[in-house]
Amino acid sequence: MTEEQTPRPILHDLPIGIDASGEREEFDSMGKVAVPADRYWGSQTQRSLHHFSIGRDRMPLEVYHAYGVVKKACALVNAESGRLPRWKADAIVHAADEAIDGRLDAHFPLFVWQTGSGTQSNMNVNEVLSNRAIQLLGGTLGSQVPVGPNDDVNMGQSSNDSFPSAMHVATVAMLDDRLLPELDRLAACLEAKSNEWMDVVKIGRTHLEDAVPLSVGQEWSGWAAQLRAAQQAIEASREGLYELALGGTAVGTGLNAPKGFSVAVAARVAELTGRPFRTAANKFMAQGSLDAMVRSSAALRGLAVALMKIANDMRWLASGPRCGIGELKLPDNEPGSSIMPGKVNPTQCEAIVMIAIQVIGDDTAVAFAGSQGNFELNAMRPIIINNVLHSIAILADGMKAFRAFSVEGTALNREQISAHLDRSLMLVTALSPVIGYQAAAHIAEDAAATGSTLREAALRSGAIDAEKFDRIVVPSDMIGEGLAGA
Amino acid sequence: MTEEQTPRPILHDLPIGIDASGEREEFDSMGKVAVPADRYWGSQTQRSLHHFSIGRDRMPLEVYHAYGVVKKACALVNAESGRLPRWKADAIVHAADEAIDGRLDAHFPLFVWQTGSGTQSNMNVNEVLSNRAIQLLGGTLGSQVPVGPNDDVNMGQSSNDSFPSAMHVATVAMLDDRLLPELDRLAACLEAKSNEWMDVVKIGRTHLEDAVPLSVGQEWSGWAAQLRAAQQAIEASREGLYELALGGTAVGTGLNAPKGFSVAVAARVAELTGRPFRTAANKFMAQGSLDAMVRSSAALRGLAVALMKIANDMRWLASGPRCGIGELKLPDNEPGSSIMPGKVNPTQCEAIVMIAIQVIGDDTAVAFAGSQGNFELNAMRPIIINNVLHSIAILADGMKAFRAFSVEGTALNREQISAHLDRSLMLVTALSPVIGYQAAAHIAEDAAATGSTLREAALRSGAIDAEKFDRIVVPSDMIGEGLAGA
Amino acid sequence: MTEEQTPRPILHDLPIGIDASGEREEFDSMGKVAVPADRYWGSQTQRSLHHFSIGRDRMPLEVYHAYGVVKKACALVNAESGRLPRWKADAIVHAADEAIDGRLDAHFPLFVWQTGSGTQSNMNVNEVLSNRAIQLLGGTLGSQVPVGPNDDVNMGQSSNDSFPSAMHVATVAMLDDRLLPELDRLAACLEAKSNEWMDVVKIGRTHLEDAVPLSVGQEWSGWAAQLRAAQQAIEASREGLYELALGGTAVGTGLNAPKGFSVAVAARVAELTGRPFRTAANKFMAQGSLDAMVRSSAALRGLAVALMKIANDMRWLASGPRCGIGELKLPDNEPGSSIMPGKVNPTQCEAIVMIAIQVIGDDTAVAFAGSQGNFELNAMRPIIINNVLHSIAILADGMKAFRAFSVEGTALNREQISAHLDRSLMLVTALSPVIGYQAAAHIAEDAAATGSTLREAALRSGAIDAEKFDRIVVPSDMIGEGLAGA
Amino acid sequence: MTEEQTPRPILHDLPIGIDASGEREEFDSMGKVAVPADRYWGSQTQRSLHHFSIGRDRMPLEVYHAYGVVKKACALVNAESGRLPRWKADAIVHAADEAIDGRLDAHFPLFVWQTGSGTQSNMNVNEVLSNRAIQLLGGTLGSQVPVGPNDDVNMGQSSNDSFPSAMHVATVAMLDDRLLPELDRLAACLEAKSNEWMDVVKIGRTHLEDAVPLSVGQEWSGWAAQLRAAQQAIEASREGLYELALGGTAVGTGLNAPKGFSVAVAARVAELTGRPFRTAANKFMAQGSLDAMVRSSAALRGLAVALMKIANDMRWLASGPRCGIGELKLPDNEPGSSIMPGKVNPTQCEAIVMIAIQVIGDDTAVAFAGSQGNFELNAMRPIIINNVLHSIAILADGMKAFRAFSVEGTALNREQISAHLDRSLMLVTALSPVIGYQAAAHIAEDAAATGSTLREAALRSGAIDAEKFDRIVVPSDMIGEGLAGA
Repeated sequence: MTEEQTPRPILHDLPIGIDASGEREEFDSMGKVAVPADRYWGSQTQRSLHHFSIGRDRMPLEVYHAYGVVKKACALVNAESGRLPRWKADAIVHAADEAIDGRLDAHFPLFVWQTGSGTQSNMNVNEVLSNRAIQLLGGTLGSQVPVGPNDDVNMGQSSNDSFPSAMHVATVAMLDDRLLPELDRLAACLEAKSNEWMDVVKIGRTHLEDAVPLSVGQEWSGWAAQLRAAQQAIEASREGLYELALGGTAVGTGLNAPKGFSVAVAARVAELTGRPFRTAANKFMAQGSLDAMVRSSAALRGLAVALMKIANDMRWLASGPRCGIGELKLPDNEPGSSIMPGKVNPTQCEAIVMIAIQVIGDDTAVAFAGSQGNFELNAMRPIIINNVLHSIAILADGMKAFRAFSVEGTALNREQISAHLDRSLMLVTALSPVIGYQAAAHIAEDAAATGSTLREAALRSGAIDAEKFDRIVVPSDMIGEGLAGA
Repeated sequence: MTEEQTPRPILHDLPIGIDASGEREEFDSMGKVAVPADRYWGSQTQRSLHHFSIGRDRMPLEVYHAYGVVKKACALVNAESGRLPRWKADAIVHAADEAIDGRLDAHFPLFVWQTGSGTQSNMNVNEVLSNRAIQLLGGTLGSQVPVGPNDDVNMGQSSNDSFPSAMHVATVAMLDDRLLPELDRLAACLEAKSNEWMDVVKIGRTHLEDAVPLSVGQEWSGWAAQLRAAQQAIEASREGLYELALGGTAVGTGLNAPKGFSVAVAARVAELTGRPFRTAANKFMAQGSLDAMVRSSAALRGLAVALMKIANDMRWLASGPRCGIGELKLPDNEPGSSIMPGKVNPTQCEAIVMIAIQVIGDDTAVAFAGSQGNFELNAMRPIIINNVLHSIAILADGMKAFRAFSVEGTALNREQISAHLDRSLMLVTALSPVIGYQAAAHIAEDAAATGSTLREAALRSGAIDAEKFDRIVVPSDMIGEGLAGA
Repeated sequence: MTEEQTPRPILHDLPIGIDASGEREEFDSMGKVAVPADRYWGSQTQRSLHHFSIGRDRMPLEVYHAYGVVKKACALVNAESGRLPRWKADAIVHAADEAIDGRLDAHFPLFVWQTGSGTQSNMNVNEVLSNRAIQLLGGTLGSQVPVGPNDDVNMGQSSNDSFPSAMHVATVAMLDDRLLPELDRLAACLEAKSNEWMDVVKIGRTHLEDAVPLSVGQEWSGWAAQLRAAQQAIEASREGLYELALGGTAVGTGLNAPKGFSVAVAARVAELTGRPFRTAANKFMAQGSLDAMVRSSAALRGLAVALMKIANDMRWLASGPRCGIGELKLPDNEPGSSIMPGKVNPTQCEAIVMIAIQVIGDDTAVAFAGSQGNFELNAMRPIIINNVLHSIAILADGMKAFRAFSVEGTALNREQISAHLDRSLMLVTALSPVIGYQAAAHIAEDAAATGSTLREAALRSGAIDAEKFDRIVVPSDMIGEGLAGA
Repeated sequence: MTEEQTPRPILHDLPIGIDASGEREEFDSMGKVAVPADRYWGSQTQRSLHHFSIGRDRMPLEVYHAYGVVKKACALVNAESGRLPRWKADAIVHAADEAIDGRLDAHFPLFVWQTGSGTQSNMNVNEVLSNRAIQLLGGTLGSQVPVGPNDDVNMGQSSNDSFPSAMHVATVAMLDDRLLPELDRLAACLEAKSNEWMDVVKIGRTHLEDAVPLSVGQEWSGWAAQLRAAQQAIEASREGLYELALGGTAVGTGLNAPKGFSVAVAARVAELTGRPFRTAANKFMAQGSLDAMVRSSAALRGLAVALMKIANDMRWLASGPRCGIGELKLPDNEPGSSIMPGKVNPTQCEAIVMIAIQVIGDDTAVAFAGSQGNFELNAMRPIIINNVLHSIAILADGMKAFRAFSVEGTALNREQISAHLDRSLMLVTALSPVIGYQAAAHIAEDAAATGSTLREAALRSGAIDAEKFDRIVVPSDMIGEGLAGA
């Protein structure tokens, strides 16, 4: 507690890594624990590894990269306020920068299924930055001096406010850096195709049944519009994520953090990330709930719902090649069957459909977990961040593959499109305003029953003459103008 | 088709109701169908009743009230453009007004589980308004003249654009008229309680375990903040609902609707409802997807997630009365047990928890159904509107009962709150910045192991003296200021 | 408590109904409550109506019918053991029989969203049977003598053991009486169609793409097999439902019930229902969890999953009529479109798909609620029984309509089936064992690229001669024998 | 095709591994592809890696181990029937054994998000076993001779029948080897605790409110019974999994597999695994649906639902230590807070709750995917197997940690248990049969209002005298006998 008087130690420029083997002793309030000598982590990380070796799900590394930002921001603010000696802050910041860049990834081994507050991952970060800072300052690993995991790295923080802050920082980063760019590219690709094929008239389908015509471009524009709306919702969902719990400490009151800490540290996070993070107006909500994450997950689900429809439409339109709809030709990426030679399947569409379903499953877990908070803490954080980041990753990568390997290379089977268009009985709809719905219906029913063409049945009905029929029933006149209907 | 030349028939002011018994013959393109003589509906409604008598779920009446708005708006626009004779429009509008007011409810009997486009409910409306208009004009029921269900009432429309429009109008009305006012009242009630108890210091709890103090008002403010955020998300979700598909007709191209119809009719709907409805920029999305409804459902789920946390917190804080936490006293509304005399239970909280879970279940169905569109139509409309309106209704009514019968009458058990506060070992946290985390931990561990008070253990440790302890460990100094943390 | 000495009152044979208007005063331990004078219910029912008027969801009547069985069985056992005077038991049994038959339905008005234990519905039953028994015995309604709702009708019971017992009785009844017969009929219908069309060869489809042939009957046999497996799982799920909590009373210990009560009363329920109900071996599980209901719901979901696949297959196979697959012809039940004349849609399939999705949504709520028990009670009973019975009802009715109005009338479009079969390139698979997979693949690829027939491409390849091709590539030889593969 | 005449090549005993660097050329029907020279996989694996690099989810290795069994069984049956030369079969079997043992794991790199049939993983296995067999036989990697991936390793198979077979084999193995033993251990642990504490009387709780007593052992027996019922359901769910699709080949007809293949190969799988696998009676269901997997997932969900209740009960009963219920003492495994010294949290319970929620989320994805089959294939296999195996793994490991680190070390806080028991007003229930429910209720209400003990209030009421009270209100007499209630 009198560190301020100590002469400022020198921060050595040492490469990452511990040149040791076997085990090292670390300690915490419960006692001593042996850890691998070549790892920076300490006793609580090791305890967690021992107690929570469950499945293969590790806390996503993006959480630790974001935690680096959190720890760096806090150290800087603590130094400015004079609570933390500048030289300690420098060491912590140095180590935090390494965490941010992913260079300490090998030192963050914990599983998702751990304490619900994420405390063990927070302590993992505290321990690693503490030991790395101690190393940089020439101290003894595991000594907790001169930079302690709780008193220095965690200064002014609790897991209860820092972990959800790291969740928000990680989620926004993943949205901005991975998801939204790929979403934009896919939407743009659909828009380009839509424009290219705006005048290709095709038969529409409702209830899977033949309907009246529209253009291929119009159909594709609907898919693009779905993606743009989903994009907008995802962007809007960042608003809640921009709010940081930091400064609330243990239960939201800010105990042990100095006045002004929450505002200052949020400003630092904003500066470090270039994103408009701000302090949460209500820390009791920010720590007692994970509602902003639930809403973010819902926005991702909205994208999944849209993608599922799009991928399904594409694979059905491409079905065949000879016994299906066959209006689209998807790229032949790989042999499709181990037994049926020459078979090619809409595999990218299938992957997207599965990804969409997985995101819906992930989101179910997120919403359920979001409802299970108690009092001053929602202790369902690891499951929520893991599912949200998982959804983002598979959506982003899935959209990239889908675009690059399927949508961009999709072509039209114009012969099939024309054949279908000519064949449909629903062109009769254009006659309805002229001869009435019921008369038109009888023509279509007659054509269907007799297998004749619509024109034949119409003329046979006596309700309309050939000249009028040929003037009215013109598919290319039936698609209206543009995208907004009549 | 030459009706414009006919002398304008007189619109009689007849009360609703058909003075007939037995059956009446109606027809459609497939033939004749007998319907109950005292009902306005026609053949297609009757066919649906015959084919789809499934369970007890009826299409919500709110859909028909909204459909009244849709039909009225279309009739007005059709009359203005000269496509529909004014006298026909007047009759349709008269009947539509009755539908809007719920006075024709008895004539809308269809089940939810019907055609996925909602066509049967649209035809139910068309048939009822047609026959009611015919009645008002002195015609013969079932004759389809002078006002036909397809050619006149449905003029310029398809189920494919009118049903989703009615869904949006119904959903916004239910949100604005039923849900949001109750949500606001409940949030305001929580805020009032929060303000009232802002200075009552209590022990905090994280992981269900004793933590550092906060005030009762702070705790309640977190709940209120959750509701306010949910409210904001629900309000924002209306944006997508304001977009109407009308004018897209069968597949989004606007076939058989005149140019300008979509804009004009949306303006009419806006005028009739006093809400900012507008035509959807992309009709292919508006008819091929139900994404806006999925997003609206997600916003409702967000409210459910928040309510579940709040209701759970309240019932746990009120648990006991003698063997639980017992810090809150909920109103005694009814005897709680058929066998245990004098038992009282947190029944309003339980109802809210069940409602929250139901909304999450409803929302699962909505999202799944939202993903199952094909081509120019998502044929999962009835299930989606039924679930969304159901969620709105039970949330609104549930919040009303919860507020009126539980939250408003909740009181504090101040003795229990004080007793808990005095007992908690986690007040040790205030010592941490002074004596360090590890030393503080050993004090708490010692107190826990020996059953002594924190003060006794602290003094015993030698790490701090009595004067300093009494100056630092003051619960009322540990709750910070306000709601935003340090 | 000295009723045994009273001369046995006479049980009058009075019709159901109370000839009174206005209100009647009832009481419970909290005081007096006015109830409608023409209803049998008492104060606690009225309190529930006042506090829980939420939405439109009423506790399903089947629960009360089952509760009649429970109350009757208990009264009989209580009388046998001498705890309840025989004449009281007779009156309760008389009233219970009326409840079982649905003749008291108008007196069970409570909402689903009430206390989580179902106590209010149990008290509703107790009050109604008490007052009805009092009426039959010539007493004063609301006096609770000579037959009290708690002391007599509820004797030896708690809501905690009787409500889950009524849930089980109601669920088994609905499964046996409504669901399983319809499921059997639908499966049998599919099996009959399968047999009828066992020799009609058609093209198979995997990944929506043309594959090798099978017969129509084989395809239909797969659907039937799915239903039979689902049926078996539903039947098996009754095992858990046969276990009754009765005899556990308040927390599972059986307090206030005499030794042997649980076994005796379960035997009575079994006798009254003709189903193998038995007492639960562990009452703490039987009351603290609703796991058997969760498993029953899961079995229903299994049926939903199967039905969704079947209905989807059917509507896709029937898609068209001219621009889709068009191998099946579904019955034309009703005009399909309000705007497109002559359009017919696969509406029964759509209803089944929506029902399947709803069941999956219902089941989500059930599983979530099932996880939310605490200590000696899972207080999520109303939501669970409501969702399970809802799922059963819509599945049963939906399957009935689907069978009667779609499956039974489905016919084949044999021309289309043949045309597709002739066209498919995947018949090449039969060549694979003879000329090797790679050579066969090149033939198929060549045919696809050049648009030629498979035979043309095969001969062109030189890998096989005409005679051999014609001998090997015979669709009808490619479908194997029967249903179990090679 | 004349391999039978070739002199039998020698099978060299070579270690696993390819001593090469850079790339090797492989081919398939679409052309040549460069693969890493030190990997056994071929062109189609490489194509999949290129096209489907999505997220971090790899096809679980257990699928490949199971596929080893499938390939071995097929090779043996093919050799027996003379279709595959014995020396080829020997080489394939040798390689398959290595796959079974996990020694080829490094050669199975594919992602989950690939073709929905799992064909790419099947081809991965075919290619690896082909190249490994070629290596063992002294051939040239990538030459596909003398052991071809399609013609030899995949002989008589399709992905469509072999992949679901591998799914079943993998799932049963994971259930038997990992999940069921841990489930049994946890249940046994609960049973042992239950027996140990069968006579410790405690207060019961319903609706979170004080109820009548039971013993600690009774309470724990309920948890154990839940697990035993879940175990039984999981075991029963294996029945569907024992059915294998092998022999159905491409669409279920068994094309290109010899008669008898399905029965023979299932018998081989049974023999190799020691489990009762058998051929599926209906191959069209076995390939067109994944219903057996959906039911298996539902059984896992049943376990999750039970675990959630148990873990929640435990953490609530252990809540405190001083301001909660505090009847249980869980082991102190690690410091619980980074800021609150000495805090210990129920982290194992939290992990179990999160795992339960994840399993419910996984199961949602499984059921959804299970419903999305089309025609002769459900192309949602990778998502289903990945989620099911994931659920099994985290449940198994989670239960192990939960038992070892929390349940086994749980102790009672007998002082707290006694204090609660003495305090509860619900002991009044024992008076009910003697003085009637209403009189008893008034005593409890009076005690609650005045804060007096139940005995004081009872005597004050005049309804009972001291002697009788003390004889009747004896908690230890109120817990009945055993587990089955009265």
